[in-house]
Amino acid sequence: MNTYGYFDDKNREYVIKRPDTPLPWINYLGCEKYFGIISNTAGGYSFYMDARLRRITRYRYNNVPVDTGGRYLYIKDGDTVWNPGWKPSQTLLDQYSCRHGLGYTVIKGQKNGVEAEVTYFVPLGENMEIWNITLTNNTKQEKEITLFSFVEFCLWDAMDDMTNFQRNLNTGEVEVENEAIFHKTEYRERRNHYAYFTCSQKIDGFDTSRDAFIGVHDGFENPRAVISGKCTNSISNGWYPVGVHQVNITLSPGRKKNLHFILGYMENKEDEKFSAPDVINKESLWAKMKVYKSSEVVNKAFNELKMYWAELLGRYRVEIDNEHVERMVNIWNQYQCMVTFNLSRSASFYESGIGRGMGFRDSNQDLLGFVHMVPERARQRILDIAVVQLSDGSCYHQYQPLTKEGNKDMGGGFNDDPLWLIASTCAYIKETGDFSILDEVVSYSDVPDSKATLLDHLYLSIKYTLKNLGPHNLPLIGHADWNDCLNLNCFSKNPGESFQTYGDKPGGVAESVMIAGLFLYACRELVALLQHIGAKEKIDEIQKGYELVRKAVEVYGWDGEWFLRAYDYYGKKVGSRFEKF
Amino acid sequence: MNTYGYFDDKNREYVIKRPDTPLPWINYLGCEKYFGIISNTAGGYSFYMDARLRRITRYRYNNVPVDTGGRYLYIKDGDTVWNPGWKPSQTLLDQYSCRHGLGYTVIKGQKNGVEAEVTYFVPLGENMEIWNITLTNNTKQEKEITLFSFVEFCLWDAMDDMTNFQRNLNTGEVEVENEAIFHKTEYRERRNHYAYFTCSQKIDGFDTSRDAFIGVHDGFENPRAVISGKCTNSISNGWYPVGVHQVNITLSPGRKKNLHFILGYMENKEDEKFSAPDVINKESLWAKMKVYKSSEVVNKAFNELKMYWAELLGRYRVEIDNEHVERMVNIWNQYQCMVTFNLSRSASFYESGIGRGMGFRDSNQDLLGFVHMVPERARQRILDIAVVQLSDGSCYHQYQPLTKEGNKDMGGGFNDDPLWLIASTCAYIKETGDFSILDEVVSYSDVPDSKATLLDHLYLSIKYTLKNLGPHNLPLIGHADWNDCLNLNCFSKNPGESFQTYGDKPGGVAESVMIAGLFLYACRELVALLQHIGAKEKIDEIQKGYELVRKAVEVYGWDGEWFLRAYDYYGKKVGSRFEKF
Repeated sequence: MNTYGYFDDKNREYVIKRPDTPLPWINYLGCEKYFGIISNTAGGYSFYMDARLRRITRYRYNNVPVDTGGRYLYIKDGDTVWNPGWKPSQTLLDQYSCRHGLGYTVIKGQKNGVEAEVTYFVPLGENMEIWNITLTNNTKQEKEITLFSFVEFCLWDAMDDMTNFQRNLNTGEVEVENEAIFHKTEYRERRNHYAYFTCSQKIDGFDTSRDAFIGVHDGFENPRAVISGKCTNSISNGWYPVGVHQVNITLSPGRKKNLHFILGYMENKEDEKFSAPDVINKESLWAKMKVYKSSEVVNKAFNELKMYWAELLGRYRVEIDNEHVERMVNIWNQYQCMVTFNLSRSASFYESGIGRGMGFRDSNQDLLGFVHMVPERARQRILDIAVVQLSDGSCYHQYQPLTKEGNKDMGGGFNDDPLWLIASTCAYIKETGDFSILDEVVSYSDVPDSKATLLDHLYLSIKYTLKNLGPHNLPLIGHADWNDCLNLNCFSKNPGESFQTYGDKPGGVAESVMIAGLFLYACRELVALLQHIGAKEKIDEIQKGYELVRKAVEVYGWDGEWFLRAYDYYGKKVGSRFEKF
Repeated sequence: MNTYGYFDDKNREYVIKRPDTPLPWINYLGCEKYFGIISNTAGGYSFYMDARLRRITRYRYNNVPVDTGGRYLYIKDGDTVWNPGWKPSQTLLDQYSCRHGLGYTVIKGQKNGVEAEVTYFVPLGENMEIWNITLTNNTKQEKEITLFSFVEFCLWDAMDDMTNFQRNLNTGEVEVENEAIFHKTEYRERRNHYAYFTCSQKIDGFDTSRDAFIGVHDGFENPRAVISGKCTNSISNGWYPVGVHQVNITLSPGRKKNLHFILGYMENKEDEKFSAPDVINKESLWAKMKVYKSSEVVNKAFNELKMYWAELLGRYRVEIDNEHVERMVNIWNQYQCMVTFNLSRSASFYESGIGRGMGFRDSNQDLLGFVHMVPERARQRILDIAVVQLSDGSCYHQYQPLTKEGNKDMGGGFNDDPLWLIASTCAYIKETGDFSILDEVVSYSDVPDSKATLLDHLYLSIKYTLKNLGPHNLPLIGHADWNDCLNLNCFSKNPGESFQTYGDKPGGVAESVMIAGLFLYACRELVALLQHIGAKEKIDEIQKGYELVRKAVEVYGWDGEWFLRAYDYYGKKVGSRFEKF
């Protein structure tokens, strides 16, 4: 048993016992459109649908100390300032625990007899996160404490936010109304969305300027306003917009106090954006907040989230006399598969959420892991992915989840990509028996009005491979295959050139045995499907291609002892036992 | 007189009296190929030629606190840890001053009777910076102190360094030999350059892993190794490479101690990269360091730098009975012009050095301010700029100083750009009388072998404008004119689209009166030049174009009371007294 934490199988939680883990240990919030990552010290950030294009809060990857910035609560109790999650003040706690559960995280800290338990979660059906807080006075004296909430807003586009300071420092805009702080940068000009950060009770102050709250030369660990015990009620114009509430609390001995903060994302219709010139129309928000003011509603939402996960994970269970296998198969592997469905590895502690969007190959593969849990959503995902296939059968290698458009910077040419669509579609049909997906109309990315069906896309993937065979009748690798770094046609020599795409010589004849294998698998899957639905007209053609490539694999892909990996640009074998090392 | 600092005209310095300035106050190091920005608390970074592509040290714009990371020295004296520039420890100093001079910065701090004076500068002709340190024991007791140097290496491409963590965390590589720390990420694969950080004397320890030196959860303000008084001699493999020297120093009462650190950039020839497999060939570095070990050589280099600036600024002087005018005209305005020559605004406290490279328009304009100081270099700059003009007369709007290639992301279409080349060339010739520049061969960016002369480029700029006149015979604005934000043909509505280039409708007929004015100015300049050199054949054509546009300005550009600013996409006047507001 390690010194940092343990699995609590009954509650389906991982429990962390001390805050100074070797690296931040991260959980994921959200399972529909609003997402966040959260560390065991409450670091992390949130976004709506797309970690790059709709980032709600700011996060600094590669910061010193690591994982600084997040969903912070500061408690000032006399001269002591502390955080329930230790960071950022790093004031030594008397007690600490973090419970990473399925879609929620509970952080509990105690200092000088005051306990603070914070549950972070995203309610089902909502584009918001709730921070539900219970403060307990475990002493025999009355305690007067001041509670500060803190988030730092991202100016929406996370890439721009971390690079274009000349512009960013001039654009930040906020509003404050009652307990609600609104981040509305560019709302006036060309956004229909804003972020809000509100409190379930009357507040005693607020700040929206980071410089006013923290100070120019001060750090997250010692904000000036917290040290002084009083917010400055600042309004941010440009510079660094933050959201801070101040709540003064008196706790009798032994008493508890419950309150919650809500951070959320809201869109307005284009012609209903304003209630007065430049003032956000907040009607729908107020209606929602009226409901969510109630702690019963919050507790109910939390229970619903727990039930949602229990139901999801209940669809597939093993019972075996090995707690490790049970734990992984029944809880954490399935949870991880769902996280992958939600985020497709686009945002993590290492992926900064700006670099890649969703991968074509990845998303098809990931589907195999969650199709049994969310078949309806898997169906939609397949159709979303197919949209970025072009009419020649090639595919964009990545796409942005918000726009559902292929990333032109990266482009296509990863020649295994198209075939994975067959793997995912067949897996979906095997799980559901829903053949109707094959008839769904999905236009090709480059021909917006094309009336291709998903089945046409599958045929096209086969055809694309057959049209792109190399000198040995093995599939041309293009930029790369599943091994993204096997860039056999690329000859980048200089710094700054992309390994994966630079110097991809036209007419490159590097071939991939891996794609050949995938092709044979895809052919067998597709033929079985076509036989099943009685669509036999294309089977012969596919079988012919299958035989052609099968023979090529046996003759040119087999080395006498094992299969080769590839042929390179010059026709040289890669991964042969005859290779010299 | 403000509470933060004052001008010291005699020494041509700005003196800062306290470290907690409202924002970091920044100076510039370097005047040839090696550059840095440095704040009054020693924050900042360094690069070789190009702030994006050859970043030597890492810097976090938009950090909390602001301006964290830089050229740090930590002094551990008993239980006290302090920095001569206050940051990052922010230990209260007994004395502090920062002198921002011409191309150098001197930071002096005193704590508990120990004074540390650090002079930062880049020697002429070298790709390195020197940190020259004098420690003085002003007490009556012997002092045993430990000195730590600190830099954090950037993995060369500053943009990649701040975004692609999945990759970066796997690539960092260093070597340590004697007192020298080498940063050599990607040296083995495809770089011919490395960075080094060395010390003029024997060291008592080193660190190259940030996590080892600072700690995962600790900040720049309290590195674990400094607190403990001892480096760990760590070798960084991936993660975060840093350079740290430890020097143990005993200072008798009243005694001084001088030493220096050198941070630099070095290139090796492709076939001389290694002295053993994977080991950097350091021969030329050792030769250089042998020379620079001497404090006399360091002092001489510093004096030469001062003389260089005195000579530069001596070329143009006013004497007037107003210290403010004298100070600005004779010192700071000229200094600023030279900084602009060096960096062309590509790196500052607000420009992160990754966004833009050098601007075509800017660089031509900037030249007007420094041509009298460095005419030979102004000549080269003009030829460098002209290289990114295309054969149709349009110009890339920006280019990277390292590659001298136009930035394709931004492209061209800022229709005032080509005309500024005439302004700068004529200014250069007026200053120098050097007409030979007109005959220099400068290929068009899109036709590498073309044999155009600079004079051909100037003709082409005129021709480009005349070929791109709008319905009123005023120049088409393209993406924008000098006002980069007057994007009259662009109709971006959605977040994430570039204001400047998105939706630039082909056939847009927006016209710019500003470009018309610039065109008329350029014509007059060019005609005067052609008359002077007796190249009269093109004059008629230029004059005809001049008259055409002059009339257009008078008829369609004049509003009865003032000149219009432009006509928009729909032919509507912009900046007319008849406009309704």
